[in-house]
Amino acid sequence: MNSLGRIFRVSLFGESHGRGVGVVIDGVPPGLELSVKDFAQDIRRRAPGEFGTTARREDDIPEILSGVYNGHTTGAPLTILFVNRDTESDDYELFGNTPRPGHADFTAASKFLGFNDPSGSGHFSGRLTLPLVAAGVVAKRVGSYGISARIVELGGIRREALPEKALPDGSIQEKNTDAEIWHDALAAAKADGDSLGAVVECTVSNMIPGLGEPFFDSVESLISHAIFSIPGVRGIEFGDGFRSAAMRGSQHNDPFVNIQNGWAQLAKNGAGGVNGGISNGEPLVFRVAFKPTSSIARPQTTYNKEEGKMARLAIPGRHDVCFALRTPPIVEAVAAIVLADLTLLK
Amino acid sequence: MNSLGRIFRVSLFGESHGRGVGVVIDGVPPGLELSVKDFAQDIRRRAPGEFGTTARREDDIPEILSGVYNGHTTGAPLTILFVNRDTESDDYELFGNTPRPGHADFTAASKFLGFNDPSGSGHFSGRLTLPLVAAGVVAKRVGSYGISARIVELGGIRREALPEKALPDGSIQEKNTDAEIWHDALAAAKADGDSLGAVVECTVSNMIPGLGEPFFDSVESLISHAIFSIPGVRGIEFGDGFRSAAMRGSQHNDPFVNIQNGWAQLAKNGAGGVNGGISNGEPLVFRVAFKPTSSIARPQTTYNKEEGKMARLAIPGRHDVCFALRTPPIVEAVAAIVLADLTLLK
Amino acid sequence: MNSLGRIFRVSLFGESHGRGVGVVIDGVPPGLELSVKDFAQDIRRRAPGEFGTTARREDDIPEILSGVYNGHTTGAPLTILFVNRDTESDDYELFGNTPRPGHADFTAASKFLGFNDPSGSGHFSGRLTLPLVAAGVVAKRVGSYGISARIVELGGIRREALPEKALPDGSIQEKNTDAEIWHDALAAAKADGDSLGAVVECTVSNMIPGLGEPFFDSVESLISHAIFSIPGVRGIEFGDGFRSAAMRGSQHNDPFVNIQNGWAQLAKNGAGGVNGGISNGEPLVFRVAFKPTSSIARPQTTYNKEEGKMARLAIPGRHDVCFALRTPPIVEAVAAIVLADLTLLK
Amino acid sequence: MNSLGRIFRVSLFGESHGRGVGVVIDGVPPGLELSVKDFAQDIRRRAPGEFGTTARREDDIPEILSGVYNGHTTGAPLTILFVNRDTESDDYELFGNTPRPGHADFTAASKFLGFNDPSGSGHFSGRLTLPLVAAGVVAKRVGSYGISARIVELGGIRREALPEKALPDGSIQEKNTDAEIWHDALAAAKADGDSLGAVVECTVSNMIPGLGEPFFDSVESLISHAIFSIPGVRGIEFGDGFRSAAMRGSQHNDPFVNIQNGWAQLAKNGAGGVNGGISNGEPLVFRVAFKPTSSIARPQTTYNKEEGKMARLAIPGRHDVCFALRTPPIVEAVAAIVLADLTLLK
Repeated sequence: MNSLGRIFRVSLFGESHGRGVGVVIDGVPPGLELSVKDFAQDIRRRAPGEFGTTARREDDIPEILSGVYNGHTTGAPLTILFVNRDTESDDYELFGNTPRPGHADFTAASKFLGFNDPSGSGHFSGRLTLPLVAAGVVAKRVGSYGISARIVELGGIRREALPEKALPDGSIQEKNTDAEIWHDALAAAKADGDSLGAVVECTVSNMIPGLGEPFFDSVESLISHAIFSIPGVRGIEFGDGFRSAAMRGSQHNDPFVNIQNGWAQLAKNGAGGVNGGISNGEPLVFRVAFKPTSSIARPQTTYNKEEGKMARLAIPGRHDVCFALRTPPIVEAVAAIVLADLTLLK
Repeated sequence: MNSLGRIFRVSLFGESHGRGVGVVIDGVPPGLELSVKDFAQDIRRRAPGEFGTTARREDDIPEILSGVYNGHTTGAPLTILFVNRDTESDDYELFGNTPRPGHADFTAASKFLGFNDPSGSGHFSGRLTLPLVAAGVVAKRVGSYGISARIVELGGIRREALPEKALPDGSIQEKNTDAEIWHDALAAAKADGDSLGAVVECTVSNMIPGLGEPFFDSVESLISHAIFSIPGVRGIEFGDGFRSAAMRGSQHNDPFVNIQNGWAQLAKNGAGGVNGGISNGEPLVFRVAFKPTSSIARPQTTYNKEEGKMARLAIPGRHDVCFALRTPPIVEAVAAIVLADLTLLK
Repeated sequence: MNSLGRIFRVSLFGESHGRGVGVVIDGVPPGLELSVKDFAQDIRRRAPGEFGTTARREDDIPEILSGVYNGHTTGAPLTILFVNRDTESDDYELFGNTPRPGHADFTAASKFLGFNDPSGSGHFSGRLTLPLVAAGVVAKRVGSYGISARIVELGGIRREALPEKALPDGSIQEKNTDAEIWHDALAAAKADGDSLGAVVECTVSNMIPGLGEPFFDSVESLISHAIFSIPGVRGIEFGDGFRSAAMRGSQHNDPFVNIQNGWAQLAKNGAGGVNGGISNGEPLVFRVAFKPTSSIARPQTTYNKEEGKMARLAIPGRHDVCFALRTPPIVEAVAAIVLADLTLLK
Repeated sequence: MNSLGRIFRVSLFGESHGRGVGVVIDGVPPGLELSVKDFAQDIRRRAPGEFGTTARREDDIPEILSGVYNGHTTGAPLTILFVNRDTESDDYELFGNTPRPGHADFTAASKFLGFNDPSGSGHFSGRLTLPLVAAGVVAKRVGSYGISARIVELGGIRREALPEKALPDGSIQEKNTDAEIWHDALAAAKADGDSLGAVVECTVSNMIPGLGEPFFDSVESLISHAIFSIPGVRGIEFGDGFRSAAMRGSQHNDPFVNIQNGWAQLAKNGAGGVNGGISNGEPLVFRVAFKPTSSIARPQTTYNKEEGKMARLAIPGRHDVCFALRTPPIVEAVAAIVLADLTLLK
C-alpha cells in the first residue's frame, strides 16, 4: 500500500521520469503554520552533494495543491507536488532485458506484468523519498520532538575513527559535511567505479511516554515498518540492538533512576527509549543499515533474458557513490511521520 | 492496535493470569483442513525446556471456538482460545511500585493510567505469543512456503563455534536441542543468576516472486513490523544486513544467474530474497536479535516510586535463562502470518 | 471484514450452532467500570418475546474473557463470549439443496465454496447480533450520549395510528410492549403463517458537534455502514430522509436559531443532526427499514439444485413473526459503537 | 478519512477555490487502457446544464499526474488533478458569521477550529465529486459491470407520471434530458427562487455472485458508506427498500427460480441483488434520496453569530435549482468504486 498511518496518513505517488512526485497527507491537524519555504532546508539536505554526483539536477520546489489556507493547515488533505523537470530518458529498455543487480528492475516487472513505468526506476525510484521528506516537514509540526539523524559509519569506518586532521600550518581542518569526513573512503570507491554503504543513527529527544499500541503497533514495529520503505535499507536496531544479543541481562537491563510526573529516566537507555513496545520518555534511539549504492560504474554480471544467458552490464551515467549520505533527512522524516501519527492517536 | 494484516487478519487478546489468551483470525480461506492436534508441534517447540525453567506449566491445549466446521476452515473468523490454568498470583504490587528493569511495568501503567492488569505482566506477557504461534499454524496452511527459524548465536557464541564434542570412547556426543548445544554458556549464566540473549535466523524457501506492496508495504516492512511485536526484539536485518553497510556495491550486489517463468535465481542472495521491497523468488532470509531475559535472579537497581529513591529489586521465582530459546516457532509464526496475508493479497 | 472502527474496533466471531458467539473490542479506553450484569438489560431487550417465538432459548450470559480487571476496563482488548447451549441441529442439509428465500443459504455457500457452517445459518445467523449488543453496552460507556431506538411502524401501521384502547369498564388498556401495541397485526400474520417488517427510529441526544470525518467518513456513512451489517435491513434515512427529496429547499433547509459555545440549535432538525457529514450538536435522528422475517411457516417456492427444478419448501420450526421487534437494542448498539469510535477519534 | 476502499483505494483532495481538486487511486491493477479522453463523457454528464445554472464554468480537463505509462495503468498510484480556473471569491466571510442553512459552514468551522478554507465551501464543496467521478471512470475498467443510474423522481414527481407530450401537429415532443422531462417543476421552483430534490436509482447488471464480506462489509454497507459521502444524500434503500417494511414475508421473499454455475436467478429481486450481505448474481438495485439544493435565492432565516441574534440571509449568485440532476454519474462512480474494490478482494 502506498499509504502509511492511522490518523496522520501519508500517501505517496509519482514516478521518477513522469509528471512529478507527490504526497497527500490526510489527518493533518488544522492551524499549523506552513509555507513553501519551510521545506527548503530538509530538501536541500537530501539533494545530491559532492559525491552525490547523480547527473540529475532538480530545483525541487514543492507546490502545495491543497490543505493550506492563509498560511495554515486547514485539516483537509494536504497535497504537495514536485514537478519533474529533468527527466531525460535513461536506458530502461536495456535494464528490462538485463536487470540491474540490486535494483527492482526484475521484481517490478514481475509484479506489475511489465506495465510498470521503468524509466528512472519509475515508482521505485529514490526520488519518491522527496515527497516523503516533505511529509516529514509537516509531521515535525505535530508535537515538539527533537529529531536528529546522522551517519555514524560509512564504508565500514565509524565516525569516531576519523579524527580531525591537523594541517601543515598547525591548524585543524574543518570538516563540515559527511562527504568531507569520509572523503578518502568515498574518493577511493569512486576511483574504483564502486560504491559504499553506511549506518545512520537517529535520536529523538523530548519523547512523550506512552506512545505505541500493543500488541502489533509497538513503537519499534511502526518505525521499522516505515524505515524499510526507504529504498536500500538492510537492517534496523533499537538501543543496544544486535549487541544486546551478546549481553547478559545484568548488563543490558536498564535501571530506572528516576520516575516523576509520568516520565522515566533510565541509566543507560539500552532499550532505545521503548519498553514493551511503549515509549518510556527517554530518547528514542535507532540505527539503520543502508547498503552500498546499487548502480556502479564497473561492469557487473547479470542475466540477459532475451539471450537466455549470463551477460555483462555497465550502467551508464553518474551515480551517488554513497546514496546513504542523503538519507539522514529521510530517516528523520520517517521518524517524524510515525511519531506524528502516534501523538495524534494518543 | 492488536490486529495485524489486511486480508489474513490476526487479532490477539488475553492476559497472562486472566481467563486465557487467544486469537481471532479473519480472512482465513475456506476449505483448509484444520484440527486441534495440528497445533501440538509448534506449541511444544515454544514450551519451556531444560533452561526454560519458568515455574509455569500449562498444557496449552487450544480450543477452537469458531471458524472450523467438519474439520475444515469455513471462511468465517477463526477463534482459538487457550484457557489459563496455572495463574498463581505474582508479586505485581511490588513491581508496580518498583518497576522491573527491562519490563513494561512502568510504560504499561503510564499508558493505561494504572488500570492495566499487572499480574504476570498482563497483556504484555510473553504468553501472548502462544496464540500468535497458533495463528502461525493456520497461516502456514496458506501457500506452501518452507519456513524455518533457528538460533544462530546465543550469548555471543555462534552455532558454528560449537563443534561436536568427541566423547572419551571416541563417539560423537549428539546435541539435539539448542539448550544442549549452548549448555555451558546457559549453565554459567544460570549459576550467576543472570540471563542471555540470542540471534534467530529465519529462512523461507519456495518464495513466490512479486510479494510486497510499494511504497510502504515492502516485504521487509511487513515482516519487521510483525517481528517487533514479539517481546524482547532489539533488531532485524535482511540478507547481508548490517554487514552490507560495510561492503562495496560490487561485493553486495547480487547478479541474476537465471530468470525463468517469472522466477529469478541470484548468485549470493545478499538481499535476502527481496529487491525494491518485492520478493524475487529466492529464499527470504532475515535475522532477529533478542535481548537477554529481563527477569534475572540477581538483585538489580531500580526506582521505588513510593519512597522516591533508588532501590534494590530481587525478582522472585524462576525464569528462562534465555527466553530466546523458545522464539524460533514464534518467529516462524510471524513470518507465516505476513506471508499468508501477502499471498492472499496477490 | 468482521471488524469495524478505527479506534474503538469491534470484531465479531462465532456461529449459531457452534461453540459460541463473541466479540473482541480493541481500543476500549482504560478505567471504564464494567461487570457482567451491565449487559443484562440490553440482552433481555433483544431476547425473543411473545411473538418472538423462536424455539431457541438461551440464557445468554456473557463471559468476559479479557480486558477487564478489578471491575474496570484495562485498555487491552476486551473479549466477550456467549457459549451456545441450545444448538439443536436444524434442517440445513435441506436448505443447502433448496435454499430458503430471503436467506443467505445460497450466497454463503457460493462465497465460501460450500465450506461455510450452514447449521442455524452459521456465521450469518441473527445470533451474531448478540455480541454486537454486548459491544454496544461497552460503547455506551464512551461519551454520554442518550441513545434510544424504538419501532415507529410495524406491518405498515404507524405507532401513532394505534390509539390506546378503552376497555369495557372505561379504563385504558396499558400496552407496555411493542408486541402488545401491534398485537392484532402480529396475530393476524401469525395465523397466516406469515411475517411482518418494521421501521425503527433511533435518536441520539447530547451529541457532540464536530463528529464525522470528511470526505468518506461522514456520520451518515459510518452509521449506515454499520446498520447495514444487521441482518434484514433494507434502507436507512436521516432526518427528513426520503421525504426531503420531495421538499423544496425553503421547506427542508433548517435555520440556525442559536449558536453558542460551539453548539448549534436548529429549528426543525430536518438534517437529522448532521451538516456536511459532520454533527452539528442537534440530536442525530435516523430510521431503519427492516424486511419481514424471511422464515415463514407457509410453504414457499424455491429451487431444488439436485433435481434442477422448482420446488416447494416449508421451513420447519417456529420463528419470529417480526424479528424487527428485537432490533431496537441492536440499532442502539450499532449507533453507540460508531459514536464511540468517532468520539475517541476526536 | 478522505480515503475509501481496501484494495482499490481512492483518496480525494482539494478545495473549491484552491489550486484544484484531485484523487489518488492506489491498488489499480496494471495494464488497464486509460487516456484523458476516457473521462470526458462522465465529466460532461456531471457538468451544469440548463437548470444547473451555477455561475461557475470549468472545462474540467483531467491531468493524469502518475500511474499511467504508454496509455496503460502501471499498478502504481494513479493521480488525477483538475486545476481550478474559475475561482472567483465568494461571500464566505458573510457565511462564516451567518452560516447558510443546510450547508457545512457551521460544522466545518466548528470541527476545524476556523482554519478550514471557507471559500466556495472549500473541501466540503460539491466540486469534490468531480475527482470522484474521475475515480469512477477508472473503477469501471475493473470488472465488466453494467452500471446505470438515473433520476426516478424529482420534486416529488415520478418519472412515470410525466408522459410524453403530444405536440399540436400530432408528433411527440422528444424529451432527451431530465431537465426537459421535469421542466415545468424546475421552472416553477426557479421562478420562486427555490430548489428541488430528487431520487436516483442505480442498477448494476452483470453482477458477480459472492461479493461482500461478512459481518461488517456487506455489499449494502459498503455502497451506503460511499453513497453518504456524496453531499446532499438523505437516504438509501436496496431492492424493495422502505416498502419492504410494510410487506409480508410471503410478498417480499424472493423465490430462486434457477441456480446454475454459481449464479442465481430470482423471481422479483426484491432484495436488490443481495442476500445476507453477499451478492446473489441478480442486478444490484438501490435508490438514493437527494435533498433539495441548499443554496436558494429567496432570503432565509439564520443566526448572526456576531450580533448574537436571528438574521435574514440572501445567498448571492446563481445556483443549481436541483443539483441532483447532476448526480447520476456520481452515484455510478461510487458504485463502480465499491464494486472494483470488492472485485479485487475476491
